[in-house]
Amino acid sequence: MFHRPLISLTTDFGYDDPFVGVMKGVICAINSHVNIVDLTHNIHPQNIQEAAFTIGMNYSYFPRNSIHAVVVDPGVGSGRRPLLVVAGEHYFIGPDNGVFSYLYKHASSDLQVIHITSEHLFLKKDSSTFQGRDVFATCAAWLSTGMEHNKFGETIADYHNLQLPASVRQSSLLIQGEVLFTDRFGNAITNITETDINDLRRVQAGHIKISLKGNDIRLSEYYYQAADRGVSALINSSGHLEVFIYMGSAASQHNILPGDEVQVCLAS
Amino acid sequence: MFHRPLISLTTDFGYDDPFVGVMKGVICAINSHVNIVDLTHNIHPQNIQEAAFTIGMNYSYFPRNSIHAVVVDPGVGSGRRPLLVVAGEHYFIGPDNGVFSYLYKHASSDLQVIHITSEHLFLKKDSSTFQGRDVFATCAAWLSTGMEHNKFGETIADYHNLQLPASVRQSSLLIQGEVLFTDRFGNAITNITETDINDLRRVQAGHIKISLKGNDIRLSEYYYQAADRGVSALINSSGHLEVFIYMGSAASQHNILPGDEVQVCLAS
Amino acid sequence: MFHRPLISLTTDFGYDDPFVGVMKGVICAINSHVNIVDLTHNIHPQNIQEAAFTIGMNYSYFPRNSIHAVVVDPGVGSGRRPLLVVAGEHYFIGPDNGVFSYLYKHASSDLQVIHITSEHLFLKKDSSTFQGRDVFATCAAWLSTGMEHNKFGETIADYHNLQLPASVRQSSLLIQGEVLFTDRFGNAITNITETDINDLRRVQAGHIKISLKGNDIRLSEYYYQAADRGVSALINSSGHLEVFIYMGSAASQHNILPGDEVQVCLAS
Repeated sequence: MFHRPLISLTTDFGYDDPFVGVMKGVICAINSHVNIVDLTHNIHPQNIQEAAFTIGMNYSYFPRNSIHAVVVDPGVGSGRRPLLVVAGEHYFIGPDNGVFSYLYKHASSDLQVIHITSEHLFLKKDSSTFQGRDVFATCAAWLSTGMEHNKFGETIADYHNLQLPASVRQSSLLIQGEVLFTDRFGNAITNITETDINDLRRVQAGHIKISLKGNDIRLSEYYYQAADRGVSALINSSGHLEVFIYMGSAASQHNILPGDEVQVCLAS
Repeated sequence: MFHRPLISLTTDFGYDDPFVGVMKGVICAINSHVNIVDLTHNIHPQNIQEAAFTIGMNYSYFPRNSIHAVVVDPGVGSGRRPLLVVAGEHYFIGPDNGVFSYLYKHASSDLQVIHITSEHLFLKKDSSTFQGRDVFATCAAWLSTGMEHNKFGETIADYHNLQLPASVRQSSLLIQGEVLFTDRFGNAITNITETDINDLRRVQAGHIKISLKGNDIRLSEYYYQAADRGVSALINSSGHLEVFIYMGSAASQHNILPGDEVQVCLAS
Repeated sequence: MFHRPLISLTTDFGYDDPFVGVMKGVICAINSHVNIVDLTHNIHPQNIQEAAFTIGMNYSYFPRNSIHAVVVDPGVGSGRRPLLVVAGEHYFIGPDNGVFSYLYKHASSDLQVIHITSEHLFLKKDSSTFQGRDVFATCAAWLSTGMEHNKFGETIADYHNLQLPASVRQSSLLIQGEVLFTDRFGNAITNITETDINDLRRVQAGHIKISLKGNDIRLSEYYYQAADRGVSALINSSGHLEVFIYMGSAASQHNILPGDEVQVCLAS
């Protein structure tokens, strides 16, 4: 039995308007057998960095050869180029505005970035306001039919690469990072990784102390373990340090916002 | 390879409750191979006019022969009739309360409106409160299996036709219209169309001026073009005049609501 | 033509974060042909009782042999067991925290509860924070490929059974119940059933009176029937007593909350 191709969608279109449904209609008109999966449509409007982290940290859970359309696109209709990116045995379709920067950094060995110039693939009524429908949905659909990726355009090297906030090892005993975003449960996900913390632990014996907004925070292994501890932290399912309150919202109780500073130090 | 049939869903059921999921369960029990696409479930509760515009302005992006179930139905359980509408090479299933009025106006040449009377197609446990599940989901599913549309009931002519707000050409140099709805980005979509504006332009040389809530607004071609202009306007992806602020919310900054008056005039 | 297997998803993950999309990616990597249907992802965070009612009252509308993954899981990562429950010709996958209690009560004749111990079915990178992805999505996907349910683990009898709030017949003429939840329309769904009310009616001739938050409420047959009545009630599509205001929100106008007391009495 054939393997069904898959297109994932990541946008800032939300769930109130018919934008996403229309993109799916356009995709199904080209390939009625493709499997369409919503990664999320609630990227904050026009927040390119949030979209870059969201697709970068999650695409690898999808089947190999999946096609990931990412449409967070404040420059729609202007000169910015539509891209097809090949990385890590996956395909990505979206605007050249930095939305694929996480991939450029982490999947660089087999990276190919193609400027989509084959305008005959676009919807006839190409608009300057909804290329999610007219360009990205159609290209993702054509790719899902098995069209070779060199049919879409030429490889480029000068694609737009966003500087994503990275953690900094400030001293042998201290890592400085920041909150990337908060989730539905009020958990705050940081840019400090399990690898960062393991590197710190190799320096000497000691225990990990986390500091965020004046809170001294201990590291747990799972949420329930911190049932009576107030604000706590753990290494989450994507390998990032995450600050939480069991059965509560750390973000709202401590007014935690993206960009807030986080320190991790090794105390003896 | 067979073409997978498609059912789109447009409702005011929202995403908090299991209503939509249950409709999909009922559809899949009848036809496990159909493709189900959400157009939107956040039509404002019981807003028939909003549903009429939403399906009317977007159905044509779906594959031919798609089935569009529209369930915004304050009269559920009362005498109002369930309909199957054939229009523009598409099928529509929903209540006879005006929700298909946009189609009646714009797809009138090949229009057929059928009162669904074949109650054996309904779910056994027909309820008077959830015909989205018991009537519309089942009929859409049966239609997707290839059932002839004359098996559903008899053609009628006295269906309920809502008077949708239309733009008015007040003088050779002036169009009067209104805001139909605002979207997630705070953009205000009006009932003035590209055709209206092109007609105006034919009168004489001049430039287009738009007026909304005391703002004098210029026409751009795409969002980014208005990066420094404050409140602006363009012809959007569905061919309607849309008022916006680049990277901002025109709706919340200027308190724009559905029904607000919009004027377009040709100034020399 | 083969019947497509179906997995329904019920979680408290919401629609802002990529959690649900990632679960779907993991499922499709194991079985690209399965049909995935969202029942709802807006269970209130960590509200096990709400999840138990939601899946219990709605699963039977799905095709026989459907697989229902329910992930509301405050104890994730702790010792609580993952379960596969066979009940009513359907399969259920989720944590052993009472989320399947409605099934234990109502589908008890053919009930089988299996503690999932076959860890080789889990995602390699098993995390202690996101078993929706690493355990429940994978097990649901394997089950959808036709894997025998005895391959998942051993039958157990000491599963966690939540005491769900039930209505009480306080006297021959009076039923005492409570509000279970309110929906998008502001309708308040109670734990008093059509059967309860029919039993009451058998006592003697009379009419049904409902009391909630000081309101004396009459029973209608459908919403529109109560167009001029203010707060009203009917037997809803799942067979439960529901309090509503036609074209209004009973919940917000009368501040109705889950747990509020409801009385139904037979007046002569």
